Amino acid sequence: MDSRERFLRACRRQAVDRPPVWFMRQAGRYMAEYRRLRERFSLLELCQRPDLATEVTVTAVERLGVDAAIIFADLLLPAEPLGLKLRYAAGEGPVITPALRDAADPAAAIADLPAPEAEALGYVSEAIRRTRAHFAGRIPVIGFAGAPFTLASYLVEGGASRTFVATKRLLWEHPAAWAHLMEKLCPLLTAFLADQVAAGAAAVQLFDSWAGALSEADYRQFVLPYVRLIVAAIEGLGTPVIYFSTGTAGYLETLRETGASVISVDWRVDLAAARERLGEGVAVQGNLDPAALLAPPAELRRAVQRVLAAAGDPPGYIFNLGHGILPETPVENVRAVVAMVQDAPAARPRRESAEGM
Amino acid sequence: MDSRERFLRACRRQAVDRPPVWFMRQAGRYMAEYRRLRERFSLLELCQRPDLATEVTVTAVERLGVDAAIIFADLLLPAEPLGLKLRYAAGEGPVITPALRDAADPAAAIADLPAPEAEALGYVSEAIRRTRAHFAGRIPVIGFAGAPFTLASYLVEGGASRTFVATKRLLWEHPAAWAHLMEKLCPLLTAFLADQVAAGAAAVQLFDSWAGALSEADYRQFVLPYVRLIVAAIEGLGTPVIYFSTGTAGYLETLRETGASVISVDWRVDLAAARERLGEGVAVQGNLDPAALLAPPAELRRAVQRVLAAAGDPPGYIFNLGHGILPETPVENVRAVVAMVQDAPAARPRRESAEGM
Repeated sequence: MDSRERFLRACRRQAVDRPPVWFMRQAGRYMAEYRRLRERFSLLELCQRPDLATEVTVTAVERLGVDAAIIFADLLLPAEPLGLKLRYAAGEGPVITPALRDAADPAAAIADLPAPEAEALGYVSEAIRRTRAHFAGRIPVIGFAGAPFTLASYLVEGGASRTFVATKRLLWEHPAAWAHLMEKLCPLLTAFLADQVAAGAAAVQLFDSWAGALSEADYRQFVLPYVRLIVAAIEGLGTPVIYFSTGTAGYLETLRETGASVISVDWRVDLAAARERLGEGVAVQGNLDPAALLAPPAELRRAVQRVLAAAGDPPGYIFNLGHGILPETPVENVRAVVAMVQDAPAARPRRESAEGM
Repeated sequence: MDSRERFLRACRRQAVDRPPVWFMRQAGRYMAEYRRLRERFSLLELCQRPDLATEVTVTAVERLGVDAAIIFADLLLPAEPLGLKLRYAAGEGPVITPALRDAADPAAAIADLPAPEAEALGYVSEAIRRTRAHFAGRIPVIGFAGAPFTLASYLVEGGASRTFVATKRLLWEHPAAWAHLMEKLCPLLTAFLADQVAAGAAAVQLFDSWAGALSEADYRQFVLPYVRLIVAAIEGLGTPVIYFSTGTAGYLETLRETGASVISVDWRVDLAAARERLGEGVAVQGNLDPAALLAPPAELRRAVQRVLAAAGDPPGYIFNLGHGILPETPVENVRAVVAMVQDAPAARPRRESAEGM
């Protein structure tokens, strides 16, 4: 069973020889090869030049020996086609100008946003094409896009936020403007992901990193309908969608309604409890605390074994962290986790999903 | 039924005429009276001078018309008796020096921390005594302490943290040193809270604000045993403990094991689901998103009604936010919420707890 088959079977809840393993932000600052490239190129250059994005993506996979290549990209790439300025301030994270929060009339500012074609982001698909060719189909390439709420929260706040007050005020005070913003982002993100699938992405991950800022009621009203639209379109192509969020362990059952084949969970919930609450109709990814990669070897091993044990027998589990690799992580610890997962016992075929073997 | 009776009956899951209501950080920057005092006095002066702490506490209660007076205090007050320097950097939050993360030998640094007497924090009890006298027993005073994990995370990180990596490394790499630190903090916090009870606190709230940084397994191993010790001591005095945390909706069932009479939940879980998962043996507090206080009136009303409806019939619900009031909150919105809760229908007496009427 090669990595592509293992990964896709896990997405579809079919029996595998062992759980597939990859890591969010597996290409990033913790890796010397990446830091060397960043000395010469900006983050945006790395994303926008297919040769560099391919190099970064491939290097991480080969250095770690993981089962999937998530294409190197950034959640905020759609900002530029939307006519906004995007820069990364040192130590402060992304800055987007003008922020919708500063607009005198947010509804008008949203109406004025262009409705860009996904071709403006075609460099991501080109990098996927190259990465796929590099691995000759053995390693699945995972496509990448921000989910509409999380992307919108950056556009509204003008960057990262702790409380998301401006975003929440927008959706509560101007629900029609919020719907309008979603109606601009959803077709763009759907087409962006469909292009990535056409370029050879075996699956896509939708990053809703900040969904957990919302109550279940707000999530259901202002976020879920739009996620469902995108997921339905991509799953309709026969391509599994991995829906990623953090801080949402209180309403996992609602995440099921996204329709994604795979729900990625953070470490703030026991994985066995999460699988129980999500039910058998969905695969699960994630759960290891990213900080565990900084623990001493014995503690790291215990943490990995705990996750693997909690994942249990039913097929449909993809080993990953609950969020991205932290910058201070030693590469050898990540490699050690890959080795531990490679040694994990096979998921038994009982409780096989309806799709069969 | 006066506020004291209403509040204490709710803590004990007995029938009430309507849910009691108070707010975390009900005395704070959003209130002009507080800002005026802060122009003349530092945060520490407000906490450490019983006349000022009483004034701040009382003013908030009288301005809002809430059912409980949480004593004005700060989670980090024990830092000074522990021999550490505490200052509040403008816009950056608290800074504690020296931080345990910078110690060459954390175990030795922890061993070197003094084991202070709770009398060093006696100004909090004095403020409780004065506040209680002011309200002549009509308004219950809630005592205040940081929970050992959250307090320790500040001591280790030297301030606020986003990832809590240094704290996690300490407990994973030096579990004996972590236990030693907990064994220093727990007697201090227990005695601190017992003094507050002796001074007239009707209940106490234990603030474990950052517990949600941890996985369930780590919470169970490194946090829960120490919370249980403190809770058992205070509940043993016949005084209800409110256990507050955020980001823990994935393992509410584990929070039950703290033994606290009341579990305070954030807004990242539907309150009806939370009550169902927590079971009937515990009262619940909280759940409104603090940002909802910035919503337009109709949306704020919907959010409050949603929480009240989800709280349901069984007695044992205290209306509150899921975290503290945000600085940009209009006072009139907080007052409007108090009025909405005051108009809420009575919790019906069926499913009365064993303690009876």
